[in-house]
Amino acid sequence: MRTLKLTVAYDGTRYAGWQRQDHAKPQKRPTVQATLEEALQRILSEPVRLKASGRTDTGVHAVGQVAHFKTATVMPNERLLLAVNHLIPEDIAVTRIENAPPDFHAQYDAASKHYRYRIFMGPVVPPFIRRYVHQVQSPLAIARMRREVEALKGEHDFAAFTKADHGRKTTVRTISRASLTRRGDELHFDIEGNGFLYTMVRSIVGTLIDIGRGRLEPGQLKKMVVTLDRKLAGTTAPAKGLTFISVDYRTTKARNT
Amino acid sequence: MRTLKLTVAYDGTRYAGWQRQDHAKPQKRPTVQATLEEALQRILSEPVRLKASGRTDTGVHAVGQVAHFKTATVMPNERLLLAVNHLIPEDIAVTRIENAPPDFHAQYDAASKHYRYRIFMGPVVPPFIRRYVHQVQSPLAIARMRREVEALKGEHDFAAFTKADHGRKTTVRTISRASLTRRGDELHFDIEGNGFLYTMVRSIVGTLIDIGRGRLEPGQLKKMVVTLDRKLAGTTAPAKGLTFISVDYRTTKARNT
Repeated sequence: MRTLKLTVAYDGTRYAGWQRQDHAKPQKRPTVQATLEEALQRILSEPVRLKASGRTDTGVHAVGQVAHFKTATVMPNERLLLAVNHLIPEDIAVTRIENAPPDFHAQYDAASKHYRYRIFMGPVVPPFIRRYVHQVQSPLAIARMRREVEALKGEHDFAAFTKADHGRKTTVRTISRASLTRRGDELHFDIEGNGFLYTMVRSIVGTLIDIGRGRLEPGQLKKMVVTLDRKLAGTTAPAKGLTFISVDYRTTKARNT
Repeated sequence: MRTLKLTVAYDGTRYAGWQRQDHAKPQKRPTVQATLEEALQRILSEPVRLKASGRTDTGVHAVGQVAHFKTATVMPNERLLLAVNHLIPEDIAVTRIENAPPDFHAQYDAASKHYRYRIFMGPVVPPFIRRYVHQVQSPLAIARMRREVEALKGEHDFAAFTKADHGRKTTVRTISRASLTRRGDELHFDIEGNGFLYTMVRSIVGTLIDIGRGRLEPGQLKKMVVTLDRKLAGTTAPAKGLTFISVDYRTTKARNT
């Protein structure tokens, strides 16, 4: 058996997120995981179960999602790459297939993940990026927002930024980067950390936007990480503006080989 | 009456091109013109007939299409811009509305138009640009293609690059720029000229690609502008890779005001 590491990009617009859904509830939208697994199974004629670095929510995009699976196939990775991209819809692309160490695990070995949220501040959204940005028409106090994101850095309990039934053992996460960068009409919020809770990034961004347009007071993010009070959160920003950029396996045994 | 000049961007994927279709034939796909006219009529409560700088074919995109119409409205342009963008689907955006001289004509005053064709040469198309590029997987001899495009520059009869029933008085056009630029995995073909015939750019690009991958001999474009022989043309490249970038009114009376 070989362990294969896949890098996957997707336009999440049409999908109910990454994760395969419980078959009991019929789904209107497909999931990225199920779409990929079906294609791989058809090519390899063996059951395929993908394990991703983490799920992405409904409507969230990815440039560099990573997943692994174990396979008995002797098919060259190059050929598998072409075959799978031929079978899946155009809004998903497997950009890379590599051999990984036998014990590589896309989720457990992930040291750090990078998400980007794209806010569009101009009056008219260009049609070509409409699926990937969230338009905010009120003027934003960017300097104030930039001071605000400092409170996110370091190890904090992010319970205030997720749903009560998050199903995780701990809501403590370490954030190594949180920055706001203006690029033309866009404002990019980049966040990196060792893990993210359900709706966490969108809840941070929604609160940040509310601070930027003066609906919430500066200091709100800090208050949330201190009090853990979900009621302090602003609006949850829409999924379409969020893209999962990359996973970093640098510090683990499962370094790219 | 005022003459308003509109700048329009669209993702052409869903549209049967710019031009409103004959009502006799029921259309499966909407047109950009009809979509915009209906929105403007609803806002202004007066009949609106747009005149564009030129039609774009089914599936072709635009960043800077220009159209004009005459109106009796006193509504500020800024307000009309917001209102129309609110009514039209997200894959069309009116990026600008300006007052033009009363006799401004988007088609007759156009001095030059710029089209770009995006060829994607990598093995896997990123989902985010999949609607705007044409993937070519065979290796392309770019230097050879670059020499080839030289034959397009200047005044030529482009009859070999359009359909027999083009319905134009003349098939002579002047090309001021024709260039190939590599940008990462993409190869951009930029062409500017005083006008383009139906399928002309896509026919040039299809022939260029066939030369680049060795299916046609170098010198084919030159032969086509000399012999006017349509049978010499390569495949017509698909519409999705083509974007109408801009119209230049620089040298006319109808300068932006």
